[in-house]
Amino acid sequence: MKRTLIVLMLAYVAMAAAQTTPKPEPTPEQAIRTVLNKQQDAWNRGNLEAYMSGYWNSPELTFFSGATETHGWTPTLERYRKAYKSDGHAMGHLDFTNIRVEMLAPNAAFVRGEWFLKMPDGKTPHGVTTLIFKKFPEGWRIIHDHSSGG
Amino acid sequence: MKRTLIVLMLAYVAMAAAQTTPKPEPTPEQAIRTVLNKQQDAWNRGNLEAYMSGYWNSPELTFFSGATETHGWTPTLERYRKAYKSDGHAMGHLDFTNIRVEMLAPNAAFVRGEWFLKMPDGKTPHGVTTLIFKKFPEGWRIIHDHSSGG
Repeated sequence: MKRTLIVLMLAYVAMAAAQTTPKPEPTPEQAIRTVLNKQQDAWNRGNLEAYMSGYWNSPELTFFSGATETHGWTPTLERYRKAYKSDGHAMGHLDFTNIRVEMLAPNAAFVRGEWFLKMPDGKTPHGVTTLIFKKFPEGWRIIHDHSSGG
Repeated sequence: MKRTLIVLMLAYVAMAAAQTTPKPEPTPEQAIRTVLNKQQDAWNRGNLEAYMSGYWNSPELTFFSGATETHGWTPTLERYRKAYKSDGHAMGHLDFTNIRVEMLAPNAAFVRGEWFLKMPDGKTPHGVTTLIFKKFPEGWRIIHDHSSGG
């Protein structure tokens, strides 16, 4: 009888340990904010490829800046490389602020925010950004970026 | 018998005339393009208020341009007035081109496009625009405009 009780108790303990509390699924807004935080961190580590992983890896990605339009993930990466990684250029320190996520559908959202850069030469370019996000099997990704300022 | 036939024929003709073919409901994309065409026409008539009727008449409307953010329908109208209607300024001739409407939900879409102005002094400022549209009881309206270039 005593042995049975011990066996039952051990079984109970084992079951309780195995019962992992399911991590709550992040809300779409949380998931989108995580993409932006990861982008900011990647930028500040100087890792442009990791930064670019927040964008939809597609020739249909669009990037608007100033008066110009860039099409496709690879040309967008190239544009960033030229502007921030080529000779005489630096990435500086990026901060996204005043981020507002607005859901438009369960799989679509748009984001309004501000960007601030602190450059090694002391300059502090600043501007605004509009991002369209869509949910893909791999997660939330930016399908369109419009950034301006300077 | 002859008279009955004439009466029946007249009745048929009257019914056919009364049966108005229902005008097909415009698709969301058509409705959005109509808003943009009306805005362009209003601008080119110098009617800023009519131009502004394409925007959501709300304090929550946002307008991003360059590095700055304008909040609300009235401040957006004021911004346009200062830039295009005040002393020494002109509205010029506006053309929207390369307009691409992408539906995100039955009641939400975003628009990518280019804007061109021909000013009386010969200058031709040009840029890109990102618009978020939502459907309201009064129709499709811009809830966020990000325009840059110059």
